[in-house]
Amino acid sequence: MSGPVAAQSTEPPLAIVCGGGALPFAVADAVVHRGRRVVLFPIKSWADPRSVERFPHRWIVLGQVGRFLRLAEQEGCRDVVMIGAVLRPSLLGIRLDWATIRMLPRIARMFRGGDDHLLSGLAGMLEDHGLRLWGAHEVAPEILMPEGPIGRRQPNTRDATDMARGLAVLAATGPFDIGQAVVVADNHVLAIEAAEGTDNMLARIAELRRQHRVRTPAGVGVLVKAPKPGQDRRLDLPSIGPLTVAGVAQAGLAGLAVVAGGAIVAEPQRLASEADRHNVFVVGIRGTEP
Amino acid sequence: MSGPVAAQSTEPPLAIVCGGGALPFAVADAVVHRGRRVVLFPIKSWADPRSVERFPHRWIVLGQVGRFLRLAEQEGCRDVVMIGAVLRPSLLGIRLDWATIRMLPRIARMFRGGDDHLLSGLAGMLEDHGLRLWGAHEVAPEILMPEGPIGRRQPNTRDATDMARGLAVLAATGPFDIGQAVVVADNHVLAIEAAEGTDNMLARIAELRRQHRVRTPAGVGVLVKAPKPGQDRRLDLPSIGPLTVAGVAQAGLAGLAVVAGGAIVAEPQRLASEADRHNVFVVGIRGTEP
Repeated sequence: MSGPVAAQSTEPPLAIVCGGGALPFAVADAVVHRGRRVVLFPIKSWADPRSVERFPHRWIVLGQVGRFLRLAEQEGCRDVVMIGAVLRPSLLGIRLDWATIRMLPRIARMFRGGDDHLLSGLAGMLEDHGLRLWGAHEVAPEILMPEGPIGRRQPNTRDATDMARGLAVLAATGPFDIGQAVVVADNHVLAIEAAEGTDNMLARIAELRRQHRVRTPAGVGVLVKAPKPGQDRRLDLPSIGPLTVAGVAQAGLAGLAVVAGGAIVAEPQRLASEADRHNVFVVGIRGTEP
Repeated sequence: MSGPVAAQSTEPPLAIVCGGGALPFAVADAVVHRGRRVVLFPIKSWADPRSVERFPHRWIVLGQVGRFLRLAEQEGCRDVVMIGAVLRPSLLGIRLDWATIRMLPRIARMFRGGDDHLLSGLAGMLEDHGLRLWGAHEVAPEILMPEGPIGRRQPNTRDATDMARGLAVLAATGPFDIGQAVVVADNHVLAIEAAEGTDNMLARIAELRRQHRVRTPAGVGVLVKAPKPGQDRRLDLPSIGPLTVAGVAQAGLAGLAVVAGGAIVAEPQRLASEADRHNVFVVGIRGTEP
């Protein structure tokens, strides 16, 4: 474990709570590149220990909010970003600390309802302890999906029709705090994401195709991702990465459309080369206005 | 193969085109019970040959519309019901007859877009050949889901909230010609059906639960099924049966709510005993008005 970071500028260091995947470190690199100090708070058994070593860090544990609040105070942090994958934990595997136990009634209320509810509840809880929650896109806007294509292939007019239908479906399901992704092929809605996540949804399309239950031929169809209307973007922006592109290719789709500014792009270089290798398009599009 | 059926009453016999599963025979029994003659047109490799034997029948083949039209005329049929499971066929496995080949441009157009589009196109095509398409619920209304519970268990107030949310989601997705089912648990939308079908969706919930990705405990949550708004009910009413109940139980849900009159109930006795055995509820509810 690294020790507390000595203050080297007047701005307090940014606390980055890190789940799994490459995104936390992309954000940390971008923030450091902008000249701000960071302290990582990697979550045990989720964050990658080797990547964590590149930054000042203090390990934390799911269910031990008290420990995190104490460490963040020691490090002089006032601003917090939370990023990276943490699957809904099995409650049995979590050992709570006292601060967390005192917060349990509030946490229990947060767990009712959808993700938005959970996440805005979490933000309010941190704010009660003098910490301000920021979105990764606010501290490092360069990690957001840009408008226009990434990689060589571009969507055609049929793809554009599928994208428009996908956006319309997401606009309709948005009020229900559901998933943020849909697959449309030749104007036919093949899948809507809810609790299963985008990768699972793409694997389902691949499986339906093997069973001849998808009418459209391979190379037709678009995965459309958008932030939910009214979503608290500080915690739950969708993200895409090289794995998403591989999933799109395996599902036999033409490409992937993301509302520009509405998703984080993990490893953009690898994503572009993966898109070219599979000959699928990746494009940032304008969302529908609510 | 049975021979043509001699006319025994003035009313021409009802043609029932039979896919897989028990539903076609439930419909045939109900129609016979009402005093009308039937001729089954079982689809090869889909309809159950043993159950078919109980009725006058002429085997037909997917992709051979001409053969069906000829046989239906021989039997003196004017009214047609189509019922039973036929997965989207692999086009490679189908040998077309000439009548079908002449209809191909029209069929190709029908295959664009969602199921509603396909089915209403099919109805129009039959009507051009002097056959009138009916819904199974029109010739045998007693096979429709009644209002109120089937089996012992009844939904509680939390279940009622989940049902209302499920109906609202289905009302929102209805215009997109998507699936007809959704799973809501403790007010959280876990899954929306699209191309995968209800059984696959329920299996997904069971899998997410094994992965601890469902927050609600076992015994909470409702599968809600409704006909799509504006759906052509002659061809695509949802159906439930004992297998649906088993899927609901394996997904760890409390029960299953179906819009009364909006789904066909296959094997209601077996369904009720299966519901009691798993202690899940099955209830017919009023749908939301469009």
